[in-house]
Amino acid sequence: MNKKVSASVINRLPRYYRYLSELENIGIERISSRDLSEKMNVTASQIRQDLNCFGGFGQQGYGYNVKYLKESISKILGLDCGYKAILVGAGNMGRTFAVNTKFESRGFSLIGIFDSDPAKEGMDIGGHKVMPYSKVKSFMAENKPQMAILAVPKSAMRRVAEELISYGIKAFLNFSYTELSPSADVAVENVHLSDSLMRLSYKLSEKERNIEGSEG
Amino acid sequence: MNKKVSASVINRLPRYYRYLSELENIGIERISSRDLSEKMNVTASQIRQDLNCFGGFGQQGYGYNVKYLKESISKILGLDCGYKAILVGAGNMGRTFAVNTKFESRGFSLIGIFDSDPAKEGMDIGGHKVMPYSKVKSFMAENKPQMAILAVPKSAMRRVAEELISYGIKAFLNFSYTELSPSADVAVENVHLSDSLMRLSYKLSEKERNIEGSEG
Repeated sequence: MNKKVSASVINRLPRYYRYLSELENIGIERISSRDLSEKMNVTASQIRQDLNCFGGFGQQGYGYNVKYLKESISKILGLDCGYKAILVGAGNMGRTFAVNTKFESRGFSLIGIFDSDPAKEGMDIGGHKVMPYSKVKSFMAENKPQMAILAVPKSAMRRVAEELISYGIKAFLNFSYTELSPSADVAVENVHLSDSLMRLSYKLSEKERNIEGSEG
Repeated sequence: MNKKVSASVINRLPRYYRYLSELENIGIERISSRDLSEKMNVTASQIRQDLNCFGGFGQQGYGYNVKYLKESISKILGLDCGYKAILVGAGNMGRTFAVNTKFESRGFSLIGIFDSDPAKEGMDIGGHKVMPYSKVKSFMAENKPQMAILAVPKSAMRRVAEELISYGIKAFLNFSYTELSPSADVAVENVHLSDSLMRLSYKLSEKERNIEGSEG
């Protein structure tokens, strides 16, 4: 488990995890690699390859044990670490993420929401009252979250990230429309929603090119 | 350009595109593959490999011409196709995406926003008035959008997608917390925001394992 796993495998693991959770929720105990492959729209050999990176979990003729595979992926993803997260920035993006993310069922806890805008103080977001950003330092000293979800304006991102690092944050999920670079001490996942629109554009234009190609 | 390009290359192209757009905006005309690599946190050989998939654009000793490379990537991504999109679902997620996405500067146009909730009718979202979903069929017949951004409840997603396909939609950006499968006729990009949290968890736990490993 110590070897370097490729980014594309890591990219697919959350999807396996979600899908296996759904199967578990409807009471399915095992699944063949063919069924898993059909439902996930990934080739069976891709699935075997992906899971082999971590030692493999399937048995010939049996398929995968849903619960065991889900728990194994959960450990690989560190979902069993019980990471605590804070959200900084209670604008549209921050609110949407806080309200729509199932933190608990993924093994996380969202423990505080902060914003520097006094007008947002006390606002209720999914059961959390927004706290003033000026309180984040003392809150962190007391509660020791490892992760911060950044949904602040582009211009404030770098300053806020540096402050949070100095208070002890080890990982950022960054929705701030500008990239934060990871470092030796800090893990970063930059999310740009509009990238998904560009990827869709690629897929659509590729389809159109293929149709033109086959008609020509 | 007709050969199949790997998903991980496609995943990186929007980031190259954004980064080159920023360079162009501040007046930078060319960049060495080393500088591009440092700023993007990707190895120079990775960049060369990625861009070689499309024939390569760099010149030995010169580096990359920013404008030319950006335009080439734009064509690969189909951003020059002038795709028109509608948004269906004007809840938190839909509003956030509509307000924060630079459709025009990425070559898209958002031409209409729809919701089935009468309370949302007429609401202004980034300059668009929300229209009733019952009008989507006639709107599509008149305006012929190719793409739909789906931000509807999980339970409504499949029905809405089928209706929109029958009215002529060819590509879906799906934020509906359940997966839509692509087909021969329809391109799909499923976005699960919480996957990014799981990927961050992997990165953080990997860092912690490495620290333990080097200390042990």
